[in-house]
Amino acid sequence: MIKSFASDNWAGACPEVMQALIDANSGHAPAYGADPYTKKAESDFKNLFGDQAEVFFVYNGTAANIITLASTTRSFNSIICSSHAHINVDECGAGEKFAGTKLLDLPNTDGKLTPEMILPHVAAERFPHQSVPGIISITQATELGTLYSVEEIKAIADLAHQYNLLLHVDGARIANAVVALNSSMKEMITDTGVDILSFGGTKNGLMFGEAVVFLKPELSSLFELFRKQGMQLASKMRFISAQFSALLANNVWEKNARHSNQMALYLGQKLAAIPEIQISQKIETNGIWAIIPEALAVKMQDAQFFYPWEEARNEYRIMTAFDTSEEEIDRFIEKITR
Amino acid sequence: MIKSFASDNWAGACPEVMQALIDANSGHAPAYGADPYTKKAESDFKNLFGDQAEVFFVYNGTAANIITLASTTRSFNSIICSSHAHINVDECGAGEKFAGTKLLDLPNTDGKLTPEMILPHVAAERFPHQSVPGIISITQATELGTLYSVEEIKAIADLAHQYNLLLHVDGARIANAVVALNSSMKEMITDTGVDILSFGGTKNGLMFGEAVVFLKPELSSLFELFRKQGMQLASKMRFISAQFSALLANNVWEKNARHSNQMALYLGQKLAAIPEIQISQKIETNGIWAIIPEALAVKMQDAQFFYPWEEARNEYRIMTAFDTSEEEIDRFIEKITR
Amino acid sequence: MIKSFASDNWAGACPEVMQALIDANSGHAPAYGADPYTKKAESDFKNLFGDQAEVFFVYNGTAANIITLASTTRSFNSIICSSHAHINVDECGAGEKFAGTKLLDLPNTDGKLTPEMILPHVAAERFPHQSVPGIISITQATELGTLYSVEEIKAIADLAHQYNLLLHVDGARIANAVVALNSSMKEMITDTGVDILSFGGTKNGLMFGEAVVFLKPELSSLFELFRKQGMQLASKMRFISAQFSALLANNVWEKNARHSNQMALYLGQKLAAIPEIQISQKIETNGIWAIIPEALAVKMQDAQFFYPWEEARNEYRIMTAFDTSEEEIDRFIEKITR
Amino acid sequence: MIKSFASDNWAGACPEVMQALIDANSGHAPAYGADPYTKKAESDFKNLFGDQAEVFFVYNGTAANIITLASTTRSFNSIICSSHAHINVDECGAGEKFAGTKLLDLPNTDGKLTPEMILPHVAAERFPHQSVPGIISITQATELGTLYSVEEIKAIADLAHQYNLLLHVDGARIANAVVALNSSMKEMITDTGVDILSFGGTKNGLMFGEAVVFLKPELSSLFELFRKQGMQLASKMRFISAQFSALLANNVWEKNARHSNQMALYLGQKLAAIPEIQISQKIETNGIWAIIPEALAVKMQDAQFFYPWEEARNEYRIMTAFDTSEEEIDRFIEKITR
Repeated sequence: MIKSFASDNWAGACPEVMQALIDANSGHAPAYGADPYTKKAESDFKNLFGDQAEVFFVYNGTAANIITLASTTRSFNSIICSSHAHINVDECGAGEKFAGTKLLDLPNTDGKLTPEMILPHVAAERFPHQSVPGIISITQATELGTLYSVEEIKAIADLAHQYNLLLHVDGARIANAVVALNSSMKEMITDTGVDILSFGGTKNGLMFGEAVVFLKPELSSLFELFRKQGMQLASKMRFISAQFSALLANNVWEKNARHSNQMALYLGQKLAAIPEIQISQKIETNGIWAIIPEALAVKMQDAQFFYPWEEARNEYRIMTAFDTSEEEIDRFIEKITR
Repeated sequence: MIKSFASDNWAGACPEVMQALIDANSGHAPAYGADPYTKKAESDFKNLFGDQAEVFFVYNGTAANIITLASTTRSFNSIICSSHAHINVDECGAGEKFAGTKLLDLPNTDGKLTPEMILPHVAAERFPHQSVPGIISITQATELGTLYSVEEIKAIADLAHQYNLLLHVDGARIANAVVALNSSMKEMITDTGVDILSFGGTKNGLMFGEAVVFLKPELSSLFELFRKQGMQLASKMRFISAQFSALLANNVWEKNARHSNQMALYLGQKLAAIPEIQISQKIETNGIWAIIPEALAVKMQDAQFFYPWEEARNEYRIMTAFDTSEEEIDRFIEKITR
Repeated sequence: MIKSFASDNWAGACPEVMQALIDANSGHAPAYGADPYTKKAESDFKNLFGDQAEVFFVYNGTAANIITLASTTRSFNSIICSSHAHINVDECGAGEKFAGTKLLDLPNTDGKLTPEMILPHVAAERFPHQSVPGIISITQATELGTLYSVEEIKAIADLAHQYNLLLHVDGARIANAVVALNSSMKEMITDTGVDILSFGGTKNGLMFGEAVVFLKPELSSLFELFRKQGMQLASKMRFISAQFSALLANNVWEKNARHSNQMALYLGQKLAAIPEIQISQKIETNGIWAIIPEALAVKMQDAQFFYPWEEARNEYRIMTAFDTSEEEIDRFIEKITR
Repeated sequence: MIKSFASDNWAGACPEVMQALIDANSGHAPAYGADPYTKKAESDFKNLFGDQAEVFFVYNGTAANIITLASTTRSFNSIICSSHAHINVDECGAGEKFAGTKLLDLPNTDGKLTPEMILPHVAAERFPHQSVPGIISITQATELGTLYSVEEIKAIADLAHQYNLLLHVDGARIANAVVALNSSMKEMITDTGVDILSFGGTKNGLMFGEAVVFLKPELSSLFELFRKQGMQLASKMRFISAQFSALLANNVWEKNARHSNQMALYLGQKLAAIPEIQISQKIETNGIWAIIPEALAVKMQDAQFFYPWEEARNEYRIMTAFDTSEEEIDRFIEKITR
């Protein structure tokens, strides 16, 4: 059984999710989401985010982000995001293609936007030569493992609404963020005024599947049509819904996220103790960014694989998952320090 | 355990596929298709279609069709298809949106194109006021349950190539077609000159996942980029690949398709014996089209649900799946004839 | 000085329009439409269509149609049109590309839609697998030279509004239609309930330029942004506006259209008198459709060029323009009957 | 007769161009570019750029840029450009919409790219998660009035070709650049290895119309289809072509550009002599960027209008055109210094 520190999407499905898939595989169920599993999952999401929340399921995170953005903007809009945003650098231009919009990516060093960065772009006079800002998209936890505080999210939401924009949160690792900040989905997302959340499943123990949660249900009216036109309507949707119900039941989502966060902290402390290694971002969730001399890095990758991040400065990203164990980390540290 | 005659996508995953998912859920595996399960599945497809075949996996059938068409045409092209084609009537304009192309849909009554229908459109003089025919897309088995013979496919392929067009086959139910015609994938697809096949998995017992098979590997060079930009690159791809390997091993695909075809024939014969019911299309695969007086239809749908097809003439579609049983059919007939 | 019967867009600019261009070429004027010529032309259009009319200028007819359709639909919509519609067959898929929509083209023999043809498509139950009808687009005069009566337009407008759809009129030759039916722009367009009109200029004596007239101003709010994103915002817009003011002043538009219609009738009568020639469509505007034996057709084209229409049945289209003269027609007839 | 320093597109058509329009307005001519005026203009462009040059005409500059980029890239590509590029900030996302590509805009302070800025983006390893660099687009003269030397263009062209990319030049003001550097179109564009040039007409004295010049004719094969699908095929194309022939005859393009450059220099020197005014960019072509105290700026704008550029630092842009006169400038200076 291979293990790695490459990414939380190298892991498989967690046991609760796998069991849910087995259980859901019984007889026939209406296709395209008209099944009882999907009804149940919709209700589970309302329990987590509040009664007004509307949830839709898609296959993967790129789709969760892009179909959301396309269904809540027009092509003449721009999408304000961090220069490090997954939608900006890791989706091969899916946003430009499917939404037809400009991505207005703002430079930063920690993956986070601030109201000060955003303000000049949304407060400018508008005329038809330029794309019109339509939505702000932030990532929580960010692509650099950092976190927005609840207050920081609220400040951006307030700014967005002041200028009639929407706030979208790419929550591919939202569970890790909520756990790390000792917050709740409701407090961090619903109560701060976030309009739409891409709720990550795959990186927190699902086999496949992501959820789009509309906190303002009136924004969701076109999602179904864009989901179909966006090639993301699952025929046997029960197999996404059932996974999500399993993830949300008994706080499995919290357990998985907390564990992977703890493993990152545990591993990070051990790595920090190695003199040649320099931790380069605060370890807040389940990723460790570190600057490592090349020879040592190669030895470490041999022991258990992980990816380079910014090669020019020997920076690497080391990730834990719901199934990373202390023993595995101990073995890894032992190997590389031998 | 609910059963239905609504559609083969109301069924779940067949036992072999479910077991493969359980087995593949072990430890970590490289993401995005760089895993041994995907390598294995690629090799399995080469065994079925010939060594030159290149296969790519996506989540669903709409994506298999549309990303294929987008990656092998330009937006000024037209896609020649049947007016009944799934890409024309059941994908909410995904082709127009993602490929930017015109769908040139040719009217017909049995879901099938002929060289005679196609010829005037491809032989016309070309000038920049009109979309340029780029690819022909046929469906096997068709959306009306009918079949192209191997010779008919070859004739269309020959016409396509004579005019420098490609031939794509939407094979959402290709297994049912191959079995029904007592043919083989190689004979029906590779040897007839088909350029690209959307190989259906979901309707033949997969939990999710479709395959795109390029019979001319040089056509596949852009697929990966369009798949990513098309929001269809699965991170935990092993869970699609492993399902396909299970479907292809021990001819499970044939077994599933043969069974559902036989159940349609069995059910069709019983229905044909009911005087008020008139079978309206030849039963060639796993669907039955029948004209049924409304009162009887309602009673039948109560017993086991199926969909209306052309309501204006009281036509209904009744489908079987890999898990339809003779007992279930007998019970259904008993109920409705009581 | 070459003359032809090829198309009304082989003609140049009529004298009043040319003079207006010379006059407008004086000093500087604000770019992008913030100039007095554009204000004047906007007012001229209000005089013609009523005070609520909002007009926007673009370069050509394809843009007038497609940007209108894109700005009043979403990509999941379909555009209902005639199979002969210019947007369907003569714009190289511009609608599919720019609007991302499906063109639902309804077959017919005279270029005209009827409520009966449209009804089944708009009355159908809606679900996300199919494109949602968003707008009906008819052409007046049609691409086959035929005409909708004022009542027929009203009937389609009523149907459209009953089903919450819009009605767009492609009026590349609207002037010829209004004159032929002895109607007025207000009666034919505003009062029938048409929502948006592409008002043709180029085919009625402009050098370049088309107008989009919104009869319901609330529909026009996004046009400016789509016009810019659609690459159709003219920087020196006064040179389009001034042409339109010249066309609308002193009813030049009517004079031009009436003359070309009369010339078609005059020529048509002479052609009808030639035994080998069979007029194949009623001559209602400035085009003549006729079936002509090939040898004679070649001789005629040598005398003054025109295009084949449906080659399979030796049908040709012969068009007059604002500058076609009786003498020219007499000379042509003399040459071909010699 | 109003004059302004707002933009070179506030001017009208220069006398030679106006005369050419009058002359071309004689009788009928084949539509869509099959006319003798267009043949003549094509030949004129070959004289300027070399025999291999292929030229196509469109209505405006946005279209010249975007249709070029769309016809030479695929949607998964990125377009590398300056953050100040017109395609990035002044075309309302037309590139993202029509080409579906990402604009990879590189920050800079003078409107210019360098090989050093570009290199990291084109030399990176490629995988399907990121857009693939497809073309580099630079603007000459830049949006900030600055210039690339001939050598600098060659260096970027060499880099582009080394990495199998194309080099496009947005030459909305290419005439001003060639004149300012005392170069020639052939030396600056053809001989440096530029692949495609958007050749500006409107800002140098045309009424409307821009040319796209392919220096590598094999790249032009799809332009016609994208031009039609891009809503930019002019039916009465002779009226664009004839203007260009007039601009190219007797070096009118040089005369116009030289004059506007000289007027900028003349005005710039007078402004520089006013103590409160600080020239903020080197005056290289026909634009002056200057920091002006607000009260003075208002007074100046009252005398003859011009636009603010970067309001936060009281920077303004003052532009001359082919028809700016010394007398006008003297009058302006007199007014504002009184």
